[in-house]
Amino acid sequence: MSDEAGAPTDPTRRRVLAALAGAGGLALTGRAGAEDAPAPDPTKVPGRPPSSLGERSPHARLERQSAFGAISGTPLQDLHGTITPADLHFERHHAGIPSIDPTHHELLIHGMVERPLRFSLPELLRFPAVTRLAFLECSGNLRIDAGEETTPQFLCGLTSQSEWTGVALATLLREVGVKPGAKWLLAEGSDASVMTRSIPIEKALDDSIVAYAQNGEPLRPAQGYPIRLFNPGWEGNTSVKWLRRIEVSDQPFMTREETAKYTEPIGGGRARQFSFTMDARSIITTPTFPATLERGWHELRGIAWSGRGRITRVEVSLDGGRRWQDARLAGPVLPKAHTRFTLPFRFEGAPMELASRAIDETGYVQPTVEALIEARGIGSVPYHLNPICHWGIERDGRVLYKPLAWG
Amino acid sequence: MSDEAGAPTDPTRRRVLAALAGAGGLALTGRAGAEDAPAPDPTKVPGRPPSSLGERSPHARLERQSAFGAISGTPLQDLHGTITPADLHFERHHAGIPSIDPTHHELLIHGMVERPLRFSLPELLRFPAVTRLAFLECSGNLRIDAGEETTPQFLCGLTSQSEWTGVALATLLREVGVKPGAKWLLAEGSDASVMTRSIPIEKALDDSIVAYAQNGEPLRPAQGYPIRLFNPGWEGNTSVKWLRRIEVSDQPFMTREETAKYTEPIGGGRARQFSFTMDARSIITTPTFPATLERGWHELRGIAWSGRGRITRVEVSLDGGRRWQDARLAGPVLPKAHTRFTLPFRFEGAPMELASRAIDETGYVQPTVEALIEARGIGSVPYHLNPICHWGIERDGRVLYKPLAWG
Repeated sequence: MSDEAGAPTDPTRRRVLAALAGAGGLALTGRAGAEDAPAPDPTKVPGRPPSSLGERSPHARLERQSAFGAISGTPLQDLHGTITPADLHFERHHAGIPSIDPTHHELLIHGMVERPLRFSLPELLRFPAVTRLAFLECSGNLRIDAGEETTPQFLCGLTSQSEWTGVALATLLREVGVKPGAKWLLAEGSDASVMTRSIPIEKALDDSIVAYAQNGEPLRPAQGYPIRLFNPGWEGNTSVKWLRRIEVSDQPFMTREETAKYTEPIGGGRARQFSFTMDARSIITTPTFPATLERGWHELRGIAWSGRGRITRVEVSLDGGRRWQDARLAGPVLPKAHTRFTLPFRFEGAPMELASRAIDETGYVQPTVEALIEARGIGSVPYHLNPICHWGIERDGRVLYKPLAWG
Repeated sequence: MSDEAGAPTDPTRRRVLAALAGAGGLALTGRAGAEDAPAPDPTKVPGRPPSSLGERSPHARLERQSAFGAISGTPLQDLHGTITPADLHFERHHAGIPSIDPTHHELLIHGMVERPLRFSLPELLRFPAVTRLAFLECSGNLRIDAGEETTPQFLCGLTSQSEWTGVALATLLREVGVKPGAKWLLAEGSDASVMTRSIPIEKALDDSIVAYAQNGEPLRPAQGYPIRLFNPGWEGNTSVKWLRRIEVSDQPFMTREETAKYTEPIGGGRARQFSFTMDARSIITTPTFPATLERGWHELRGIAWSGRGRITRVEVSLDGGRRWQDARLAGPVLPKAHTRFTLPFRFEGAPMELASRAIDETGYVQPTVEALIEARGIGSVPYHLNPICHWGIERDGRVLYKPLAWG
């Protein structure tokens, strides 16, 4: 939003509109062609009364894009601000969404503790609550084979943001009394995959939440109802849904999800394990495929986030990465949270190539795909891939994704 | 969340639970009686795959409470954190919810301007966007005749909070060029009541938003789809929904909604008009009717807000207003936004009376009902009433609202 940048819409077009306004008075001059039926005047018809729930407009349908019966991506290109509506939060399940009656669900905390305990949902609700706006991202959040006709939703829609509320895991660990020497936890879900992950106790005592609410309301079944673990800034898979058991130990549990899966090659035949934290990343959400731009001023928009803390800067290039300029960050900028960035730009009919890179408070800079390949090697397992992504604008205004040169 | 306060659950009960945990291993020991059917084990059944939208659990239904065919209140007692899901945002309509096709909807800005212009939704989406988390409250948000069996939803559920995104009205006013001498705007909706309100131009240039999105997604019809005015901190009625026209003038328009309605007596036979700003207020949301408390530790929870800026302090009384102590405020504390406050307390079986009062950054303190009656007089029109409210806990743990002594 910049005065110096001039008016963000085309003055010529504006003059035409002004002429229309002068002629049309208050009539709702539709801009559709003459073949359309005239729009009914909504001021002449009593409207619907309130109902128990406010539904979406039939003109503004949104939906997630599902794949493989196990993944559902958030329509990032259709969203504004930073919050993901709960029903549009991405999903990644390993054996589907279990149906759980909360009156039969409990969380057991046991192992190296003084007092093993079970907690029902009503019991958890009595503990002091913590609330936090934060992103949740699947560690496998990049389609490396995506072609030109790719939306942000398809490319990397496995990141979403919610306001999570629950009990600090540290509070529950104080309640059971962790024994000296304890270093790891096992978190276990009650889905049919019995998802299990090992979590260092430092994380649990720092900011892990046993969450029962998302965006104000109880968790939805796809997000772990009645309770899930939530590890801010960490790969989504560690935020175990439908949480039923936490076991405290002096060593990691070496589950399938940290041996066969969720590890990454780092070159030289070696792999890294327990790579929990999601690195800083950004993605442009507007303009992207399938938009077609008119000439004139537009606003480039996107989201940036880092599992290590706050985003301090997002740089945007309009020429494919040769020159970079700072985007505006919309506040409040919160740690481990999606942050909106924007930059006004003008499309004149010459081809453009848009790209963005995030920088977080540790000084980490989102890498190019070449730097990422250099660090990880070709044919890498698709976890923790966060390359700078590019979008081209053709002469005719069509916006196309620039496929990654993966090798 | 306080260590000194001791464990927030009953130690005796905890020992029983610990014994159960020791005996039961990993079995999901239901705490329901033997007459219940055994719960199916969700780990033995493949779950449902992801779908286009993640629905709520049948065990966690939420709904608004409608009245008079024109009002629908947010279930404050069922919500956590600070965000209201869009479908649970309160509604107050004057002629129902119009059905609007966005391709036939435009915003006309005219009157004392250099260039009268019309803006379609796609045009508005091209302007620089602003996003803000803020409350919206109806100025008639108190049932003064509420009896003991009253929920927060029924008492004052006409306040909700969302992340609003749109174009700063100041940006659009720069586009049309406001003429010297302009002091007021008329905002007009396209519902069947053709809602109109006068807005001082200072507000419009300060923080008014022509909003097209709420909590990340397009506005819902009940909230003004495709566009509404949003005036942070001001009485909800000024945030005109289904906005179609803004007229700039050098004086207020004296519409029905600011002469016959939305004015308040202030004693001595006088009334105040254009009382836009919502005063600081708080409401306890937990525990409230119809809860029944077990003995032991609980967390008192509520929300506080002020149309004048940030909440700086919320004080809570456990004895009906004799002694007050500071509640904890959950951050980030944002201006003109619902802010969570919490305080652990112990219910021992003796009657208690809970109350909360908000203080904002201007130093304003939420008044007692007596102070409010003193200022406004008995029989006041029910606008801008924000008295401290009390909830009693009976010996048996039942929580009941304490009706206001209104006269």
